Amino acid sequence: MAETRARIRVVNPNSNAAVTRGIDEALEPLRFADGPEIVCSTLEEGPFGIESEADVEGVTLPLRRLVEADNGSDAFVIACYSDPGLHLCREGTARPLFGIAECGVLTALARAERFGVVAISQRSIRRHLRYLRQMGLTERFAGERPLEMSVAQSAESGTLARLIEVGRELKNEDGADAVILGCAGMARHRRPLEHALGIPVIDPTQAAVTMALGAVRLARG
Amino acid sequence: MAETRARIRVVNPNSNAAVTRGIDEALEPLRFADGPEIVCSTLEEGPFGIESEADVEGVTLPLRRLVEADNGSDAFVIACYSDPGLHLCREGTARPLFGIAECGVLTALARAERFGVVAISQRSIRRHLRYLRQMGLTERFAGERPLEMSVAQSAESGTLARLIEVGRELKNEDGADAVILGCAGMARHRRPLEHALGIPVIDPTQAAVTMALGAVRLARG
Amino acid sequence: MAETRARIRVVNPNSNAAVTRGIDEALEPLRFADGPEIVCSTLEEGPFGIESEADVEGVTLPLRRLVEADNGSDAFVIACYSDPGLHLCREGTARPLFGIAECGVLTALARAERFGVVAISQRSIRRHLRYLRQMGLTERFAGERPLEMSVAQSAESGTLARLIEVGRELKNEDGADAVILGCAGMARHRRPLEHALGIPVIDPTQAAVTMALGAVRLARG
Amino acid sequence: MAETRARIRVVNPNSNAAVTRGIDEALEPLRFADGPEIVCSTLEEGPFGIESEADVEGVTLPLRRLVEADNGSDAFVIACYSDPGLHLCREGTARPLFGIAECGVLTALARAERFGVVAISQRSIRRHLRYLRQMGLTERFAGERPLEMSVAQSAESGTLARLIEVGRELKNEDGADAVILGCAGMARHRRPLEHALGIPVIDPTQAAVTMALGAVRLARG
Amino acid sequence: MAETRARIRVVNPNSNAAVTRGIDEALEPLRFADGPEIVCSTLEEGPFGIESEADVEGVTLPLRRLVEADNGSDAFVIACYSDPGLHLCREGTARPLFGIAECGVLTALARAERFGVVAISQRSIRRHLRYLRQMGLTERFAGERPLEMSVAQSAESGTLARLIEVGRELKNEDGADAVILGCAGMARHRRPLEHALGIPVIDPTQAAVTMALGAVRLARG
Amino acid sequence: MAETRARIRVVNPNSNAAVTRGIDEALEPLRFADGPEIVCSTLEEGPFGIESEADVEGVTLPLRRLVEADNGSDAFVIACYSDPGLHLCREGTARPLFGIAECGVLTALARAERFGVVAISQRSIRRHLRYLRQMGLTERFAGERPLEMSVAQSAESGTLARLIEVGRELKNEDGADAVILGCAGMARHRRPLEHALGIPVIDPTQAAVTMALGAVRLARG
Repeated sequence: MAETRARIRVVNPNSNAAVTRGIDEALEPLRFADGPEIVCSTLEEGPFGIESEADVEGVTLPLRRLVEADNGSDAFVIACYSDPGLHLCREGTARPLFGIAECGVLTALARAERFGVVAISQRSIRRHLRYLRQMGLTERFAGERPLEMSVAQSAESGTLARLIEVGRELKNEDGADAVILGCAGMARHRRPLEHALGIPVIDPTQAAVTMALGAVRLARG
Repeated sequence: MAETRARIRVVNPNSNAAVTRGIDEALEPLRFADGPEIVCSTLEEGPFGIESEADVEGVTLPLRRLVEADNGSDAFVIACYSDPGLHLCREGTARPLFGIAECGVLTALARAERFGVVAISQRSIRRHLRYLRQMGLTERFAGERPLEMSVAQSAESGTLARLIEVGRELKNEDGADAVILGCAGMARHRRPLEHALGIPVIDPTQAAVTMALGAVRLARG
Repeated sequence: MAETRARIRVVNPNSNAAVTRGIDEALEPLRFADGPEIVCSTLEEGPFGIESEADVEGVTLPLRRLVEADNGSDAFVIACYSDPGLHLCREGTARPLFGIAECGVLTALARAERFGVVAISQRSIRRHLRYLRQMGLTERFAGERPLEMSVAQSAESGTLARLIEVGRELKNEDGADAVILGCAGMARHRRPLEHALGIPVIDPTQAAVTMALGAVRLARG
Repeated sequence: MAETRARIRVVNPNSNAAVTRGIDEALEPLRFADGPEIVCSTLEEGPFGIESEADVEGVTLPLRRLVEADNGSDAFVIACYSDPGLHLCREGTARPLFGIAECGVLTALARAERFGVVAISQRSIRRHLRYLRQMGLTERFAGERPLEMSVAQSAESGTLARLIEVGRELKNEDGADAVILGCAGMARHRRPLEHALGIPVIDPTQAAVTMALGAVRLARG
Repeated sequence: MAETRARIRVVNPNSNAAVTRGIDEALEPLRFADGPEIVCSTLEEGPFGIESEADVEGVTLPLRRLVEADNGSDAFVIACYSDPGLHLCREGTARPLFGIAECGVLTALARAERFGVVAISQRSIRRHLRYLRQMGLTERFAGERPLEMSVAQSAESGTLARLIEVGRELKNEDGADAVILGCAGMARHRRPLEHALGIPVIDPTQAAVTMALGAVRLARG
Repeated sequence: MAETRARIRVVNPNSNAAVTRGIDEALEPLRFADGPEIVCSTLEEGPFGIESEADVEGVTLPLRRLVEADNGSDAFVIACYSDPGLHLCREGTARPLFGIAECGVLTALARAERFGVVAISQRSIRRHLRYLRQMGLTERFAGERPLEMSVAQSAESGTLARLIEVGRELKNEDGADAVILGCAGMARHRRPLEHALGIPVIDPTQAAVTMALGAVRLARG
């Protein structure tokens, strides 16, 4: 433990620096005096929000290059709920690398019988469902419902009321016992939404960084 | 963050204090100067090892009482790979409570395409498979193989050679990309086994405490 | 066949003797002059109704002791729709031992394409679904709906109207072709409910005792 | 119960009267002094053994006609492990009608974690697997292995040694905890095979008649 | 390619010649100057529409005889959405033989994330769902809804408005991205329905003949 | 049908022109005098063979650009068994666009109960299995086995002996009833392999172009 301080790199694949700052703040509770450094960065090549297949595919190779160029980090987190380039980036490094969608779902499963997801928009849901099937994690899926907002809008404070409305539908109509925020930009709403719904609300970036924290510490421990 | 220090209670439901000590040591990397206290305790009412259905059922109500009596902990981890009393204990508290089998599988899924499990003995495997089905997490399951040892034996140092042998079968014959140690008592073998196999090896107690760490910090953060 | 008369012991794990009497009456058609004795008993240690995880867990060890102490029965039926202690009790005896939830679902599958379940209350449904997943029997599950009554209330005669209402929702909205009474205490309503719905209605205790009858006779036959 | 005596009709869809006699004898333990009459008959139009798709399809309409012509029976059992004409015959009557493959699997699931099947020949296995998928009952399926005999041969006494051999493979290599005899003609071997294997062996015709017995009694009870 | 011209035989198992003519017209785009002959015929033994289990079973053996008697065709298509006698007919020939339900679903899966089905009537849906499970193709199934018409009615022109109504429910309420016409008689409505819905509409006979075309050409190619 | 001739564009995403020529020849039987033009092209930006995640991801955006730039084609086929960029490209066009892996599996399912796959190398298998799960098409999957060759090698004539060896393992050990060639470069071996194995062998590019042929003709027909 006395070696150089370990580092977890969290990459926001969109180029919206406000989203990166929101992520950075949301990770504050996972920073410890003697724990790994948690560094958040914005992918310069990224689009302003990742909302289409083209947005997703446009960042995979830049992410791979970023991972391969970064020799100073002990683990990586790709902070977009479509897990762009997850397997591609894993191919490029032996270090642990986490996708926030995967970690968000896995963490929800440790807290609840069935999970629901709040998506930014209807068009993401089809992609998310396909990915859920790819992960083999559909059995305890309760449902996914859209906010119908842009990524940028969803990070704003006025979003909370809409989140509560959609969260209640997931809980009361779909039977969700936990709700996942289906976009990295909604982190600031996690606690108030959890209080409003009375069931666990999972911010997937926090979930992934928690897992990265464990992986980094245990690799050395 | 300036309040009283948070606490994660890890309960070893068997009464073998050597196993509890092994768990306690294995959790050292997850302790931070300004992080939650991680307290390991032995369930006095527990059997010396949990190997039968009767062993599992014998600890569920004592675990529930322990959880309900402990008002000072912020989260709980039940450190037995059969997750005894998981839903019973969750019914008794609003605080996050984790089972190591569930967290072990979920953490393996964040690291690998398919996971294998090393069990203490053949008779546990049937119970584990039933539980895997209950969790709805069978799709990326590669296989489970027994050491054919007692819980006490499995904590001993001579166990490593046998673990490597079984781990290689899981990797090479069953196609596992990660291996879960299917008993809380094997934690000390995680790192050497990982080095020998060249794929992630998951100690489920470490996995659960990592998730508890996140839950505790984020509840306050 | 000329030996001592075989015996099937049916245990009501709650301590409500009225429920036991209702079970006993419902089993009358399965008693034959030259068939096995069917003995119903109330578990003294049981709660008045089994409605929570704690209720379920509180009866598992007493059930195991009862099974192990009873050397005169040829088969056992645990008459609670949560199948408390099923695998625990099976570990304690080589004799056939049946759970009514498992037998209720299996018997419904022999009569209908898809089955629905009437539960006592919403809170049981989550537990039942988890168990259905554990049994691997979800593929032909149409839905489960609650009466929102206590176990004691559900055995009363005024319950029928509510049962018909919920049964019709299962049939018409969820597409169930058979309905299972999700509590041992509703047996007396089976026939009138079946007549009202026009599809098979399964009392799970009757289903389990039927299977026990076969097992007992064929073991000797 | 004082009305005319109820009757269960068991139809052997092949025209091999020796198989019908074997079935008839195997059902003796399910006959009670005051219970339903259990009548076994041979389908005259049937082939000598049902081994191909053409054999299966050749008996479906004759079975339907037989069911519709028989107004004196309270329930029917189609005694061929391919469940020929099951849904066709159900369409033609409101009385309970059981297929032995379906009942064999369902009964095995009430006795064991995972079941295996002994088939007459390799060519039946593909059909059985397709049917298992149709029933939605694959999750606890351990495997199916062929005797490589004709239906006629399988009813002979010398078959036992081969059955034990195949049953041991299902138990030891495939992990079956119960074995189903995948042909109505093997009933006489059930008990000795069960003794040799030490796990439940299910004769599917006995399983179906047991369920029919329950259905008939409860319809009147 | 210079040999005798290849031939695909499409059999309408119902005896409604108007349906056969509709099929024949719908296949015109799949006929090429130098391609296989596509011959549509009506099964004389068939009922006027296939709407019940008895209708389905009544045509299986006639279909088998037709296939075995036809030595001049290179491939067969059974043009009824219940795929009557599919495995029976395959047993009788080494030539490729396609069922339109199977091909309809498989073709929809090549065009869309999730598919819906328009059925003639509610009673067919239960049979279709059972068959979908048998094919192992339920994971991307969005739903099935009935027109509540006879086979004969569904081929008439006034059907389109009702088809559009049901298709919109499948698309908007069930989330279907493609719609399959669940009856061979609706082919003429494919194009206008596709234009009205804005998602692919699959005529299953066209889907099957397309696959047959490939199989026939590649067998020689 | 009298308009300009329709065109199906088949893109080989690797830059190995020999593979493109092999594909082109294999599609000859699907060309008709009055049918769509089938044009095969090599993606210049592609790697020499697609064997890694980086190879897959490297071609997705070039494929999208190619599709968007080609206004003269009526349908597209992406001729690589990893279906690179499938959903990305579909997002960029309203015209039908097929992936050969998806079409290969779907076509195999129309011909056989269970399918096996011959992969170029072990490392592709993990990716293929993940994709099979994403497609929801695992239920009738028998197994996948590697040739352990490069893409370039696999197109050579000496490959046939190895293909037959692996194909026989899939058939005899894994129970496959059809075999898919898991790489666009093996097309020339389809017919001899099929003759050697005695079960259908599916070239996925031929399968996809067959489906494209249907889609193109029916869009106009």
